[in-house]
Amino acid sequence: MPRSSEFSLERTIALLSRTPGALNAFLRGLPEIWIHRNEGGESWTPFEIVGHLIVGERTDWMPRVQIILQHGESRAFEPFDRLAQKKQCHGKTLDELLDQFAQLRNQNLAKLQSINLQPSDLERRGTHPALGTVTLSQLLATWTVHDLTHLHQLSRVMAGQYRDAVGPWIAYLGVLHCDGHSS
Amino acid sequence: MPRSSEFSLERTIALLSRTPGALNAFLRGLPEIWIHRNEGGESWTPFEIVGHLIVGERTDWMPRVQIILQHGESRAFEPFDRLAQKKQCHGKTLDELLDQFAQLRNQNLAKLQSINLQPSDLERRGTHPALGTVTLSQLLATWTVHDLTHLHQLSRVMAGQYRDAVGPWIAYLGVLHCDGHSS
Repeated sequence: MPRSSEFSLERTIALLSRTPGALNAFLRGLPEIWIHRNEGGESWTPFEIVGHLIVGERTDWMPRVQIILQHGESRAFEPFDRLAQKKQCHGKTLDELLDQFAQLRNQNLAKLQSINLQPSDLERRGTHPALGTVTLSQLLATWTVHDLTHLHQLSRVMAGQYRDAVGPWIAYLGVLHCDGHSS
Repeated sequence: MPRSSEFSLERTIALLSRTPGALNAFLRGLPEIWIHRNEGGESWTPFEIVGHLIVGERTDWMPRVQIILQHGESRAFEPFDRLAQKKQCHGKTLDELLDQFAQLRNQNLAKLQSINLQPSDLERRGTHPALGTVTLSQLLATWTVHDLTHLHQLSRVMAGQYRDAVGPWIAYLGVLHCDGHSS
């Protein structure tokens, strides 16, 4: 079974560096139904999910790395604004968001590599405003799994647009039985 | 909310044509932890998921389209062999599987477009060995959502490798609370 010792900086960067290209290959040029529909109510569209990933690049991941390195546990992170993508997306096209995400992710990974973190740095501690003490390696692992959680969400949101179109096959399609795990 | 009238051949082909490129951009060259680890027991690795998608291209989607067009409801589809990817993957590299999936998907979409399906064809009926009567449009919608269900699975399998590495952030990462919806 998975263990926390599975973490490595190389594995983390390898995955983080591929997410923008994967989203670009999957989403760019798709018809509106796949990009601008949500799961009802205030839920997110794929377009807004890309916007949310951009917000993370701007305000969360590398800024939090810097806070840990400069202030340790003495300064809590800024809370993650989970609604900021509404502003981020306003007036933009999907192509613009995909380009921006790729550019910011590249810049952030270049910064991360320039810091030249040593194994002992990965155990340095910071303070999450709600979760309390966390380590730098937990922050970097979370950045990675955050990409995957939104890929998971994106595939579910898109699948939901064909919920009725699949007819009786709904019984076999696990993604249509996912409740979002958001509660 | 989504309706069955959301189905269109153009929307379906647009999504199906992008899946191989997205998987290629995301998976090619990733370290072993992301490609060859599963969720325990007989569960699938990302490598095997790509193998399963290849099996679908070879034996299920377009062959079933042909059965509906040639035989209607009089001849049931062959059951989908959900374990055939073990054989499909044997001795292959991930790069080979990604190339093969892209090639087969392209060939199948070219065949689908060459048939020049009309709106009335989409209502033609076939017989699923377990589900009974299904329509051609339901088959094509299922092909699409099948891609998405395995993208959903893939993101969950990969995220699980960092389950412990994220520490207390596990509370916020929905993908780590997904039970797979497979029962």
